Amino acid sequence: MSKQITIVGAGLVGSLLAALLGKRGHQVHVYERRLDIRNADISAGKSINMACSARGWKALDLVGAGDKVREAAIAMKGRMMHGTDESLTFQPYGKEGEAIYSISRAGLNQILIDHADEYENVNFYFEHKCVNIDLDTPVASFELANGKTKYVESDLIFGTDGAFSAVRSVMQKLKHFNYSQEYISHDYKELSIEAKNGDFQMDKHALHIWPRGSHMLIALPNPDGSFTCTLFLPYEGENSFEKLNSESEIKTFFENKFPDALKLIPNLIDLFNENPTSPLVIIKCFPWTHNGKVALIGDASHAIVPFYGQGMNAGFEDVSILNELLDEHGENWSELFKAFETSRKPDADAIADLALKNFIEMRDLVGQDWFLKRKKIERALYETFPKDFIPQYSMVSFTHTPYSEAVRKGNQQDLILDALANHEDILDIIDRGEFKSYVEANHIIQN
Amino acid sequence: MSKQITIVGAGLVGSLLAALLGKRGHQVHVYERRLDIRNADISAGKSINMACSARGWKALDLVGAGDKVREAAIAMKGRMMHGTDESLTFQPYGKEGEAIYSISRAGLNQILIDHADEYENVNFYFEHKCVNIDLDTPVASFELANGKTKYVESDLIFGTDGAFSAVRSVMQKLKHFNYSQEYISHDYKELSIEAKNGDFQMDKHALHIWPRGSHMLIALPNPDGSFTCTLFLPYEGENSFEKLNSESEIKTFFENKFPDALKLIPNLIDLFNENPTSPLVIIKCFPWTHNGKVALIGDASHAIVPFYGQGMNAGFEDVSILNELLDEHGENWSELFKAFETSRKPDADAIADLALKNFIEMRDLVGQDWFLKRKKIERALYETFPKDFIPQYSMVSFTHTPYSEAVRKGNQQDLILDALANHEDILDIIDRGEFKSYVEANHIIQN
Repeated sequence: MSKQITIVGAGLVGSLLAALLGKRGHQVHVYERRLDIRNADISAGKSINMACSARGWKALDLVGAGDKVREAAIAMKGRMMHGTDESLTFQPYGKEGEAIYSISRAGLNQILIDHADEYENVNFYFEHKCVNIDLDTPVASFELANGKTKYVESDLIFGTDGAFSAVRSVMQKLKHFNYSQEYISHDYKELSIEAKNGDFQMDKHALHIWPRGSHMLIALPNPDGSFTCTLFLPYEGENSFEKLNSESEIKTFFENKFPDALKLIPNLIDLFNENPTSPLVIIKCFPWTHNGKVALIGDASHAIVPFYGQGMNAGFEDVSILNELLDEHGENWSELFKAFETSRKPDADAIADLALKNFIEMRDLVGQDWFLKRKKIERALYETFPKDFIPQYSMVSFTHTPYSEAVRKGNQQDLILDALANHEDILDIIDRGEFKSYVEANHIIQN
Repeated sequence: MSKQITIVGAGLVGSLLAALLGKRGHQVHVYERRLDIRNADISAGKSINMACSARGWKALDLVGAGDKVREAAIAMKGRMMHGTDESLTFQPYGKEGEAIYSISRAGLNQILIDHADEYENVNFYFEHKCVNIDLDTPVASFELANGKTKYVESDLIFGTDGAFSAVRSVMQKLKHFNYSQEYISHDYKELSIEAKNGDFQMDKHALHIWPRGSHMLIALPNPDGSFTCTLFLPYEGENSFEKLNSESEIKTFFENKFPDALKLIPNLIDLFNENPTSPLVIIKCFPWTHNGKVALIGDASHAIVPFYGQGMNAGFEDVSILNELLDEHGENWSELFKAFETSRKPDADAIADLALKNFIEMRDLVGQDWFLKRKKIERALYETFPKDFIPQYSMVSFTHTPYSEAVRKGNQQDLILDALANHEDILDIIDRGEFKSYVEANHIIQN
């Protein structure tokens, strides 16, 4: 039966959800605080980049938007590490043909709003700021640009309004609503490397990383030949944003830490001063739904740090899972919402933890010898036993294995990798082509 | 130099803080959302009871209110456990002369407001609901009973407005403000045992506990001969509030679980239906202060569960510590606030954890043989080595040892108690008077 559905927030998850619910025949009304991003001027390199992987593609294909997005995305086949000596080291993310895809947030959002807007039963309303929710009716109140308040009653309300969700802030006042917001010690700032004569100045098919222990710089490619860079630094203490105030402090820091990047960012000082420094927050809460009438989806219920490239993918997977549950439960929303939050919460917690752990890997471990040794062994295991040993990164990025299962299996893998890495000759064994027989003889993989 | 100080919340901590700052000569304005509790009709048994211990008394004496409070308090020298077979077991809390003190929240609050109000430079304003704070000015906005808004600018604002602090809810929107609210699985409901012919119907010098594993009932004495009881039950599942709806369900539950208490609460059904079921929440956040101008004190920054009887004591200790820091730092509030939150946060976290742990002890362990055995050993150690072995409960309740240190020492004590409890004959050794030589010979206590 067709429902009147209010979606609060026309970001990535909100517009994707609108398309799904539109496709399923509901009357969908999407309210967005900001201006219509489709009319905004978005110059590449000024918008955050997302890394779309298997879970993202599945949901995009589910609503038929996958191919449109593919046209605007660039495959990143691995990590390109930049040393302080300007050396380059490449680590593939997966097997031949596997990649994660760089796409601008704004570009993707435009595609998804356009896509959902094609359904006659989906309507978008911009400059509608959610100021309150009556959770039991349910009624959403929006403040309009003219200062007036609009009250919208519907059968269901979805809060897809991100890490600082207005819908969640109302739910936070409910008895038994658990909630946490935890800022990590690092802030971030966007920078960019422009195209040169319309061409990329670094390998376009890689996610570039300058790992420096306590901090790092990354760069993701855009179709116009530019790279969107993000600098992650502690907000206080040594090597922190707090310490970079003058032109010379900024320049000296980049000369010492990122000399090759500095050469590619001639307008560093302007970018550094113009672009905001933004915090990174981890949001956890429970329950995610209220009374079969209101549900939080995506960052609104589980915002994570960006270091596994899974924030958007996890939000999109919420939508895929909701779709599966709709097939299973029909339109019993109360039952469906309970099933959704109960089954999904452990996976949301798992990817939150993995993302934080990957920050240490990206900024620090990727530059260390023993880490590279372990990566080589992991790769050899994957190539030799492709069914029995799928590395955690591949499970997370290239399969639909639940995140919590990827954590469990990853913990087992750590034990195996530690054991093998402690074997002094292991890399020689791999080089000599004796790895398969060695692993089998020692019963190292048991499935 | 005298400051204009706004205190938001005239509860226990707010009125105590007002007295302290009034005593130090500041111009203090205390704004309270509710009516003046001094004009309210508070019948005993209808208000929550607090257990005041060393940290509480220290702060009360600091402002000269200790003796007034002592007159309204009743010493509880130990726990009186009630079995389902109506058996009674008494465990003293400490040494001879040591006790925690039962006092009604409302009665104590009245004493403290009266006490602070005696200072000419302290003023109370009731029915002033804090609706916003401009943290940088700072300006506090209050909604009055007539619907108008009052703006109050001052040098400093203290948020002493409890677990659901309005001041904190404004700070929660600040970048880098970490915050969590976590509800435990149990709710609580107040009940009461009235006096009979003006006299107590149970031992007045004990905190009565009916430990039943997953749940419990407790009772604290009031000066009028009544006991304030609190029932702690899960809010859902087996033996939960959710399952107690009809008169017969409530009655059968009490008959099975608390037969002796049921006889003393003839009006159980009325009380059960009239009194609200309330949740129990643990609040953590950081930072507690902003810019040397705004500070959260007590439950507003660290609300805990009531099972160690330390929520109020911890809030009062905040005030003692603030006083010490004022002596040390003078009126450099910015420096003082930093020192306060940095030094105090680990202790607030420590008592939050201890309080939760004590819930398991109170509702479950106190009824178990091995727990009683360990308690006997602990007592023997305390009596034999009073300087080198102070039980954790005593450290928390009868000393000013920082909570975090009590946790560290408690963990060491657990090892010692486990080791001794594993010795089959240990209780015989104690009974034979050979404990001292046994402990010394085996080098069990090393300080």
